[in-house]
This record gives sequence, C-alpha cells and structure tokens, in this order.
Amino acid sequence: MLPTVAWKDGSVVMIDQRRLPGEEVYLTLQGVEEVAQAIEKMAVRGAPAIGITAAYGAALGYRLLGRDDPEAWQETLRRLAATRPTAKNLFWALDRMERFYRQLGGAPYSEKLTALVREAVAIDEEDVEMNRRMGRYGASLFQDGDGILTHCNAGALATGGYGTALGVIRAALEAGKRVHVFADETRPLLQGARLTCWELLRDGIDTTLITDNMAAFLMQKGRVQRVVVGADRITSLGYVANKIGTYGVAVLAKEHGVPFYVAAPFSTFDLSLREGEEIPIEERRGAELLSLQGVTTAPAGVKTWNPAFDVTPPDLISALITERGILFPPYHLSIAEAAARKG
Amino acid sequence: MLPTVAWKDGSVVMIDQRRLPGEEVYLTLQGVEEVAQAIEKMAVRGAPAIGITAAYGAALGYRLLGRDDPEAWQETLRRLAATRPTAKNLFWALDRMERFYRQLGGAPYSEKLTALVREAVAIDEEDVEMNRRMGRYGASLFQDGDGILTHCNAGALATGGYGTALGVIRAALEAGKRVHVFADETRPLLQGARLTCWELLRDGIDTTLITDNMAAFLMQKGRVQRVVVGADRITSLGYVANKIGTYGVAVLAKEHGVPFYVAAPFSTFDLSLREGEEIPIEERRGAELLSLQGVTTAPAGVKTWNPAFDVTPPDLISALITERGILFPPYHLSIAEAAARKG
Repeated sequence: MLPTVAWKDGSVVMIDQRRLPGEEVYLTLQGVEEVAQAIEKMAVRGAPAIGITAAYGAALGYRLLGRDDPEAWQETLRRLAATRPTAKNLFWALDRMERFYRQLGGAPYSEKLTALVREAVAIDEEDVEMNRRMGRYGASLFQDGDGILTHCNAGALATGGYGTALGVIRAALEAGKRVHVFADETRPLLQGARLTCWELLRDGIDTTLITDNMAAFLMQKGRVQRVVVGADRITSLGYVANKIGTYGVAVLAKEHGVPFYVAAPFSTFDLSLREGEEIPIEERRGAELLSLQGVTTAPAGVKTWNPAFDVTPPDLISALITERGILFPPYHLSIAEAAARKG
Repeated sequence: MLPTVAWKDGSVVMIDQRRLPGEEVYLTLQGVEEVAQAIEKMAVRGAPAIGITAAYGAALGYRLLGRDDPEAWQETLRRLAATRPTAKNLFWALDRMERFYRQLGGAPYSEKLTALVREAVAIDEEDVEMNRRMGRYGASLFQDGDGILTHCNAGALATGGYGTALGVIRAALEAGKRVHVFADETRPLLQGARLTCWELLRDGIDTTLITDNMAAFLMQKGRVQRVVVGADRITSLGYVANKIGTYGVAVLAKEHGVPFYVAAPFSTFDLSLREGEEIPIEERRGAELLSLQGVTTAPAGVKTWNPAFDVTPPDLISALITERGILFPPYHLSIAEAAARKG
C-alpha cells in the first residue's frame, strides 16, 4: 500500500480519504494553506497522520520561504496548529519540528531545509516503526478465533502506515491468530465503513461491517471477544479522547465483560492534562448530519449536535497498548512510569 | 397532519415514508401484493402502522375477491403475514380481522365487505385513541425541562397517529412541560433523522438530531433525563424487541442513571412468548449498509450484519407505558395483571 502521506519533490502528497472507497485520488499540496485545509476538511485524518502531515507542512512552509525567516515560519506553524483542536499528535509533531529547528542554530538555510525535511520524514517513519512495535505487544492480548470490534479508522490510513488499533490486529494475524474484525461504520463521516473496511479488504482480512448501533446486540450475542480502538489524546490519568462513539462502545464492553483496549503511541499522550474535561473537543458543522454527499438525510431546520470526539474514562479501559509496552491500571502510575522510560 | 395510512375509495392510501423528508408522496395501493410490498420495502413501518396497513390490506383483498371466498381470503392474510417477522401488531391485526370475519357467519358478501372495512378503520382509530391514552399516562413520568432521548420513529408515522413514544412526548408538552427532544438518527434507514425530526419539526417541537453513537457522550454530559422508545414485540416477561440500537441505548441509560421507558399498546404484547430469544428478529439485506440512495458508503465485497431489531431485557426497563396504565417491574406480574384487565 502507498503511504498515507509523503514528501515528494518538494510537495506534500496524500491520498484524499474523503473520496474513498469509491476513488483513489492523490492530492499534491504545494502550499501551507492547502495542507492546513486538507487537515481541516479531513482529506487526511487520524491523530498520528495529522501529526505527520503537519510536520511535512512545516517543512513545506520553510521551503516556500526561500530563506531563513524564523518569524514567518512561526506563522506557518501557528496556521497548522489551528486546524483541529483535539489530536495531541498535531501539537506534538509541530513542537518537535520547532525544537529541532532551534537545535540547528546558525546553519545555512539550505542545510536547515534539508534537515527539516529529514526530520518530518523521520516522524513519519518512526510512526510506522512504533505501530509495528505496538502491534507486537498488543497481539499477545488476542486469542485465536477472537471476534474483534473496532471503531472509526485507526489503521494505515490514520498513521504513517500499519496502524495503531488495526496494526495490533495485523500483528495478531501475522502471529497466526485467526481473528475476525467487526467494523463500526462510524457516523457521521463513516471512517469505519469507508476506510477501515477498505484497507482491511485490501489486506484480505476477514471483516464484517455493522452500523454503530448494532455493536450492543453483537456483544449480547457473544460475538465480540475484544474491542480495540485508537486515540486522539490521552491524559496522565488515562482519560482517552477518541472518535465520537468510542465512549459508548467502552460502556457496552464493560456491560458484556469484553476487554476494551486503546492502542496509541506516546505522541498521543498529553501529560500536561489530568482529567477528561480538560481535553478540547472539536464540534463540527451540523451539516455533516443533515446530508451525505448531496443526499438529504434530515429535514432542513432541525437542530444538531456534532462533537467529533468523546472521552472514555480510565475505569472502562482494560489496557493501553503503546510502543513502550502494554500499560495496565492504575494508569496514573503505569503512564508515568512508561513516560519516564526512554522511547 | 394527514393519517399515516387510510382507506380511501376502495384503496389503501399511505405516505411513502422512504421519500421523507425530501418529498411528501402518497401511494394509492390497489392490490394486496402492492400492500405487502409497501410493508416489506418499508414505505410504511412502525409496528402499529404495519398492523393497521395489514388490516386495510385484508379488507382490500376481500373487496378484490368480488365474492365470499374464505380460502382465497386466507391466502391474502397469509401473504400479508409473510411480510415482516418481528412486529407483533401485524399478526395481532390479521388475527383480529380473521376472528371478526368468522363472527360475520353467513351474512351476504357486500355486508361482510362493509363490516371488514369498518373493522380495519376501527383498528386504525382505536390505535390513535390508545396512543392518546398512553400519552396521558406517560406524561406524568416527565418533568418540566427534561431532555428526552428517543430512538427510531415511534411517532405519528409509526402508528395510526399521535405516536407511542412521541405521543408521550406530545402529551407532556400539552400538559405544559417544556421538554426538549434528542433524536438518534437511527442507522441504517435513518428513521430518526428522516421521520422523527420531520414530524416533530412540523409540530414545532424543540428537537436536536444526533448520530446514534453520540447518545453516550450526551448522557455523560448530563443532557438526557429520560429515554422513551416504542416497541415491536414485548414478551410476557417484559423483553422488548425494538429497532436495532435500542438495547445499546438502554445499557447506556442504566450506566448513567437515566430512566428508560418503552411506550406500546397491548397489540404489541405477545404473551405466548417469555424469553427474548423467542422473538424472531428480521435480518435485512446487507445492501442497506453499503450505500445510501445511490451513494456508496462502504467498499463492495465487505461482509455485513444487518439485524433490523434487537432485544432489551426487562432489567434495563424502568417502566412500560401502555393504554392500560404504566407497568412497573416485576413485569411478569404487572403485564399479566394488565392483560387480565379489560382493554
């Protein structure tokens, strides 16, 4: 599979995820504003992929300056940071690019440019490597024959490649465990139906699509042995912001005695926050609920509420799967301990 | 508002609910097969409305015979009964028409025809009256200022008029309680978004649309004080089959300490069944999950699971609102007691 996002000939190239699964269209973005809007309008989405895209966007912005102009580049970073509020990886990647830039000191512009591009590529490649490591850890939690429910898309398309939640599933399959995936379609933007099913089908992974509201009945029927999802931000106490609907799946998992796992790299953790309410939750346009690609799905004039994420409390989470190992409750201790370890 | 379904000039007339909210199109059905397919293809849906439609279809079938032919008419009843398996009201209405027919004995054909049409109209009108009675009982459970979540459409469009769950909401408003409605959109066929929002907006009722997977977060935020839904079949122990997703909402309501009410007339109760697993659950075509009015929403070739209903156990239900009063746990006693009373 092609990478989700890449640096190519001085531009940022990405598959337009809004067009999937119908069409495979690649965008070549040649300006910072284009990159910012690709994030805002969700041509690319998924916390790690947003971070990677922002890093490439930062390198692109520096290239377009044509000279070393720290203040103008700060403007670029601010524009990219203002795209979406919830995913920690966005701010993590921009911070890393900025810190790296400062370390370059008084090097010549062309040298700094080359270094910044290399750093963005490193963020991308390290993400894939972290996913593979996470997969090896997480696969140990699965049993042969498990039915695994996932929500939204925490796959190759949400990351540099391989995926967080779907990476763990891929690793379980690579380890010879015959697991079956149930994909929540994930309204309103259908990332589960459009993206998770698309990438799992391409890999020949046994996948069944359900609507979000079928997950409870599926669990009642005993067909789900584990749930695994990704994350957009995780606090020091283990509160997890992830795609809207995740919290409901976690409640259902508890009710049915099904382990609920979250897979995310440390770039998703925000140790400056403790409680779930501290996480900024993006609310998107109500129009996303009123029509689907031009088809009217609700009467004009009805009120809407459209939060893009929700927050799952730590007591509903059986384990956090990270590239530094599997973390178990109490999370305030296991997260602090893993954070203190080298990455 | 026009009736959901009606007898007019020897035909069955109904609003085509598949076209709402975009278009108000009325169908004039002149044959039993047309009526059966209108039920199967969900031009009309909602357990009470399905029962009423079947009663009119039975009268239409008798009219089309042109003479008293009990065996041919049985064929009509069998065709109508074979349309959808879950809603008890379908079988209840056909049974009532058949029992009524037997009571007509050796009366002349034209007299029997007139009587059968009148009986179908009576089933329709009594349904509206039951909904109003249910509403008066159920409204007492609501407080001024409540946020009320409902799932699917258990409104005027699902009944002869007024509605079961939405009838209770209408009655609360008529009683001067300023309640606010949250409508789950109800995938895959969006009865909540398309129908509940449409009929509540027409009545000027304050309504906010959410996707099904937002209900948990809405409850976590303390914005839901009650849940009220309809039902397709209720067993003697109080197991409730209703639109897929209902069971999940009930689990979430319990987790958040929110009362969960089911509003249904006695024609929905099936006292021949005890356990939830005894209720036949319709599974519909996977195509309903793969596209929406011609827009592809998932990759071709992915497996699907598409149950149209689920079953909520009695321990998640705070009260059953019926035309014979509000029933509380233990339901095996309160249902039996209400069933023994005159309707």
